[in-house]
Amino acid sequence: MSDDVAVVGAGMIPFGERFELGYYDMIGRAYKEAKSHVDHGIDDSDVDAAWLGTAYGTLSNDAEIVSGARLSGATGLKGIPITRVENACATGSDAVRNAAAAVQAGQADVAVVVGAEKMRDKPTDEFMKTVTNRPTTRGMTAPAFFAMYAQRHMQEYGTTREQMAEVAVKNHANGTKCEYSHFDFEVDAESVLDAPRVSYPFGLYDCSPQTDGAACLVLASEDVADSYTDDPVWVRGTGNSTVPYDMTKRDDYLEAEPTIEAASQAYEMAGLGPDDVDVVEQHDCFTFTELLNMEDLGFCEKGEGGEFVASGATRLDGDLPVNPSGGLKAKGHPIGATGVAQICELVWQLRNEVGERQVPDATTGLQHNLAGSLAVSNVTVVSTERD
Amino acid sequence: MSDDVAVVGAGMIPFGERFELGYYDMIGRAYKEAKSHVDHGIDDSDVDAAWLGTAYGTLSNDAEIVSGARLSGATGLKGIPITRVENACATGSDAVRNAAAAVQAGQADVAVVVGAEKMRDKPTDEFMKTVTNRPTTRGMTAPAFFAMYAQRHMQEYGTTREQMAEVAVKNHANGTKCEYSHFDFEVDAESVLDAPRVSYPFGLYDCSPQTDGAACLVLASEDVADSYTDDPVWVRGTGNSTVPYDMTKRDDYLEAEPTIEAASQAYEMAGLGPDDVDVVEQHDCFTFTELLNMEDLGFCEKGEGGEFVASGATRLDGDLPVNPSGGLKAKGHPIGATGVAQICELVWQLRNEVGERQVPDATTGLQHNLAGSLAVSNVTVVSTERD
Repeated sequence: MSDDVAVVGAGMIPFGERFELGYYDMIGRAYKEAKSHVDHGIDDSDVDAAWLGTAYGTLSNDAEIVSGARLSGATGLKGIPITRVENACATGSDAVRNAAAAVQAGQADVAVVVGAEKMRDKPTDEFMKTVTNRPTTRGMTAPAFFAMYAQRHMQEYGTTREQMAEVAVKNHANGTKCEYSHFDFEVDAESVLDAPRVSYPFGLYDCSPQTDGAACLVLASEDVADSYTDDPVWVRGTGNSTVPYDMTKRDDYLEAEPTIEAASQAYEMAGLGPDDVDVVEQHDCFTFTELLNMEDLGFCEKGEGGEFVASGATRLDGDLPVNPSGGLKAKGHPIGATGVAQICELVWQLRNEVGERQVPDATTGLQHNLAGSLAVSNVTVVSTERD
Repeated sequence: MSDDVAVVGAGMIPFGERFELGYYDMIGRAYKEAKSHVDHGIDDSDVDAAWLGTAYGTLSNDAEIVSGARLSGATGLKGIPITRVENACATGSDAVRNAAAAVQAGQADVAVVVGAEKMRDKPTDEFMKTVTNRPTTRGMTAPAFFAMYAQRHMQEYGTTREQMAEVAVKNHANGTKCEYSHFDFEVDAESVLDAPRVSYPFGLYDCSPQTDGAACLVLASEDVADSYTDDPVWVRGTGNSTVPYDMTKRDDYLEAEPTIEAASQAYEMAGLGPDDVDVVEQHDCFTFTELLNMEDLGFCEKGEGGEFVASGATRLDGDLPVNPSGGLKAKGHPIGATGVAQICELVWQLRNEVGERQVPDATTGLQHNLAGSLAVSNVTVVSTERD
């Protein structure tokens, strides 16, 4: 970016079944956590603008209209511009992308982004009512359409359920080291393979859970960043790419075109490539998705995602640790919060703050979401190195 | 703005009961209309990024998740960043604000913004389910909380129902001159005053209707604007201000603080003030709201909105024509589309393209939305003069 944007604060609440907290409570606490993470302190009056990422209004609020007023009510921030962004499972990271553009444009020196989603208060059928009935996806929901891609990948490249299970094993293990993780238990490959079937080839442990959560980032322009921290993490690149929901219009089911394009945009803006990335937080909504993403983000060749993961390269002690936080699979996937929380994890990793799950000597991280029927992708590249 | 942003195309579909069109149809047609309005032509491949403003997912889509993929499916634009923005009744104009910031930041040379809402296909109780149950507004809906402000204004400043009725009379008259208007009939003051009561002091004709509609703007950076038109309209200033929904926390019920602050931001960014404005498209969701807005936008003193409107100053042949399109009151209020359509009208007015309802010699226009429980406001200042 020509005018650099820094992350100067990152905070979140532990993901999970947070029945004791309302939507407003979650937002307020995430904001407070992020503020307390700003090294030199920050006042509410420093905040020039804010963005709220929430995907489902009725689950969190009993109303589809969310609007910026919810963030205002939850945080006390008021009299400033506040926009709600929704972009399916890329909601949180796309809110960050819009906020970063406004900072870059000089419309705000300090911008707050909160992602929040309340998914556990209501029964699953209430949730399903908010996502189904889509003529363009033929009524299918996420497990079914990701499973279609997985089956095609298995057929074309010989990808196996065992390779997918490796993702669950790794991310559950990472999750046990993360105090913010919804799940804090390990799973072994046998349990993953023997779990009740959801949609072939996915069993229960191939799927990410429904989770409550909220996360917050404080962004600052290059002009003011040093008044908040001596150790900023720079938003070096952002990208988003979108195609229609309609899966019958895809060329094939072997790649997520939006991921490839969004990554290309973010790498280009950053002046960096896959080889420069030290740590990744990416969208493992299903175990297979992580294999696919590794290919589409440029970390291995097309068709080699299964082998790449099975090689151990993406474990905490591997060459390219992926989802050290536990990922969507173990940390959880409270939709609006997910992308924001992924960037929180990267910021903490790059600042060497995460203890047991620390990736050594990481300077550059990549965040990735994949949304809808693999129709929307959002990628963010962050680095301690400014240029 | 430091890097100027131009509107190079503006188009919309006629608002109304558009049962014959689906949500995708409306978006696609609005985009096509805006493209056909670009003087030197534009290709889909020129578009670098897009924003979609839609407030209610289930009314339009049978699902709360809207995402940028809907715009992709409806327009054929794909492989580019597309964000859905929701900000209650300021949804459309806030989408424009975010798009303009991205262009200003250099992230897009050409950006498309579509606002769209399908509100007539389902019965009103389906609609109400999506907006009610808000603990912070005590279950009240829009007529009730705007009525509270109206009653307080009547008590404090002697504002009358007759003055409010003037707004309905004027905007219905304007609507008959606008081919995009939902209503194309005039009303007289007596009919407004005698109409069935909705929420005192509002009768039926004091309220804006529920409407289907879509509108689209094409924005371009200063670097490329002249390849699309010789007559750009410049986005000179944008502003947004947000406070909590909770009406018990307001200082009084005599002003909409967000409008005052959002206007101040937009005027400051534009380097212009109320005296520079020649034509206004503002948020007359209820007749009273237009009186209040005139005060809060700086066009008359606090408390004098009623007299100002009753003086005839805001009629088509007055000193400051307000809502020449017919406004929300007559043209209609398809929520996500409203703010985008208001800017379309201003662009056409400033380019001298609207025939019978043309405001003579207008060079600067102001757009305004007021959303939620008077909790969110968004203001845009556009001008044919660049600086």
